[in-house]
Amino acid sequence: MAQKDFTITKVMTKKPKPDDQELEFGKHFTDHMFVMDYHIDKGWYDGRIIPYQPITLDPASMIFHYGQTVFEGLKAYSTSKGDVQLFRPDENIHRLNRSNERMCIPTIDFDLAMEAIKQLVSVDKDWVPKAKGTSLYIRPYIIATEPYLGVAPSKQYKFIIILSPVGAYYKEGINPVKIAVENEYIRAVEGGTGEAKTAGNYAGSLIAQEKVADDGYAQVLWLDGHEKRYIEEVGSMNVFFKINGEVITPALNGSILPGVTRKSVIDLLKSWDIPVTERRISLDEIKEAHQKGQLEEAFGSGTAAVISPIGELAFNQVHMVINDMKTGDVSKRLYDTMTQIQYGDIEDPFDWTIRV
Amino acid sequence: MAQKDFTITKVMTKKPKPDDQELEFGKHFTDHMFVMDYHIDKGWYDGRIIPYQPITLDPASMIFHYGQTVFEGLKAYSTSKGDVQLFRPDENIHRLNRSNERMCIPTIDFDLAMEAIKQLVSVDKDWVPKAKGTSLYIRPYIIATEPYLGVAPSKQYKFIIILSPVGAYYKEGINPVKIAVENEYIRAVEGGTGEAKTAGNYAGSLIAQEKVADDGYAQVLWLDGHEKRYIEEVGSMNVFFKINGEVITPALNGSILPGVTRKSVIDLLKSWDIPVTERRISLDEIKEAHQKGQLEEAFGSGTAAVISPIGELAFNQVHMVINDMKTGDVSKRLYDTMTQIQYGDIEDPFDWTIRV
Ligand SMILES: Cc1ncc(COP(=O)(O)O)c(C=O)c1O
Ligand SMILES: Cc1ncc(COP(=O)(O)O)c(C=O)c1O
Repeated sequence: MAQKDFTITKVMTKKPKPDDQELEFGKHFTDHMFVMDYHIDKGWYDGRIIPYQPITLDPASMIFHYGQTVFEGLKAYSTSKGDVQLFRPDENIHRLNRSNERMCIPTIDFDLAMEAIKQLVSVDKDWVPKAKGTSLYIRPYIIATEPYLGVAPSKQYKFIIILSPVGAYYKEGINPVKIAVENEYIRAVEGGTGEAKTAGNYAGSLIAQEKVADDGYAQVLWLDGHEKRYIEEVGSMNVFFKINGEVITPALNGSILPGVTRKSVIDLLKSWDIPVTERRISLDEIKEAHQKGQLEEAFGSGTAAVISPIGELAFNQVHMVINDMKTGDVSKRLYDTMTQIQYGDIEDPFDWTIRV
Repeated sequence: MAQKDFTITKVMTKKPKPDDQELEFGKHFTDHMFVMDYHIDKGWYDGRIIPYQPITLDPASMIFHYGQTVFEGLKAYSTSKGDVQLFRPDENIHRLNRSNERMCIPTIDFDLAMEAIKQLVSVDKDWVPKAKGTSLYIRPYIIATEPYLGVAPSKQYKFIIILSPVGAYYKEGINPVKIAVENEYIRAVEGGTGEAKTAGNYAGSLIAQEKVADDGYAQVLWLDGHEKRYIEEVGSMNVFFKINGEVITPALNGSILPGVTRKSVIDLLKSWDIPVTERRISLDEIKEAHQKGQLEEAFGSGTAAVISPIGELAFNQVHMVINDMKTGDVSKRLYDTMTQIQYGDIEDPFDWTIRV
């Protein structure tokens, strides 16, 4: 039986909280954090909630050299009833463990991880912001800590959870963003680490984002690593296209991150009897649909932004304006329904939310 | 003019040194380390040599989440004359800065980096081991330290150098190793980060190594990410094949690490009038050459192992034994000449070594 009786050490003095209205993404952190250690001889041990504090590591710790690490991102929401609830945390824990397997990191007992998230959020409950669009972002992550320069899986790890009260991810909110198609750099390729939520995927993607940021593009749209022909995903979102009444999203092919929001969007569309298909889709197909006037909507899906309509897709010198740069009906309905479920404003027919 | 007047704080009590004969790779660290900070408003500042000590970082530091980091690996050698010398440190510094550019990390002034390496090795000179095959491994690295969960280049970094007295990387020494061809996982693809010395490339490769380690394979041979047909490199070595009198190594195609040892091997072979070609080479070509009895030698090249003859190459159920599992003449001559230059036993006609 896995340890669940975490020791809890609370802060003496709580930090002042940022104004709910002025929250940015990932800049403020709460009073406490969760830490648990792993040693190959002991397994995971010493789960504890402690005051938010710096981590002290040997400079030879493997995380600094070979990047053996995974992370997750999910949110806790303040409901109108005054509760705090999590959105599909089970999905994040399962994905964490799938990422662990790809990265040769020992998996974490499901119940233990769930308990750690719940208890930590519970301890810092007064940090869950209440203003519209705000939430408490939960960042579980695991880092390799063995001080050793050989290239091999670490024998020691730390599992850490930190919490950050956040506002809207995109300054634009639910307003459409401009996305640039990346045709030089590659995020991931089948057989690589694209399917895992691991640091290297993000480090490698920065250069592409930098390239287009000056031109006003929020993020890049990645193409496949083999032929640079097929759509993969956006910076930190999966992507959907509504073409001629049908919603299409790239199938999970081994290089795309299997998003929890993506899965939820598919479930919602099905429940509404809106045709939705997971399949390979090329940039050419998108272009053609656009030319024919059949590209009705495009949007990204992700925990940070929920639903982010794409108002413009640019590649080379071509700028495809989608739905007159306005939020489409399906995008809007998905955003509204998802957020209403997340904030407990409507019934949750799927049992997606879990009360803390 | 970049800062070079580093402050030096020496330890009060030196650590006991490990026995030269029992050194492993990357397990022991010296008394001191070099640290320099970067802030977007200040540039690189406060270069200092301090006692080897833990690093203290905010748990939201970007290195833990998005893996923005680069590293290098080079060595200092004790010569028979009692000097300490570095092997081509200029190449490593240039490569560090090329990696920095790919990973959106601010570059470091060449002279400053060189001075940091030299001064640190000088302070820990008595840590350079003297037994045959031993050396002082130098690990410069840069990590993103800004506490921020947005996916963007960090505004703060640390440049750190640590030193580790090392024995031979492979237990087998110059004896041939067995290498397995990897046909499921991919290390890198053009447009990705393969050319940069960055953590994510190594984290992603662990699973492949794990898969074959039990069967006695030292490392895996990576194939290209597009077609899994062309040879890329070995775990932490570039790779060469001697076919019918000609030495062939995969051309630097954007996904292969440009090894300093690789470059030196090419220079040496040219100086000996042994034909050497950098070009795309397929696994099929290797197989065919082996069947015809023309695959005379195969070897890896890298700072850790210098030259590592490949005695067996395995893929699927086929085991190609190369040169009867014995070290070939060219491999031997390269190893001997490289190490003689590195240890100052012969003249250095190329000006590769730099005295500390
Ligand atoms: C690369 C990438 N794709 C897609 C997503 C969306 O996944 P989720 O809906 O689980 O947040 C994320 C996570 O934010 C991501 O990092
Ligand atoms: C992936 C990879 N390939 C090749 C090499 C060889 O490079 P070098 O000869 O500069 O050590 C290394 C470094 O050790 C490496 O990590």
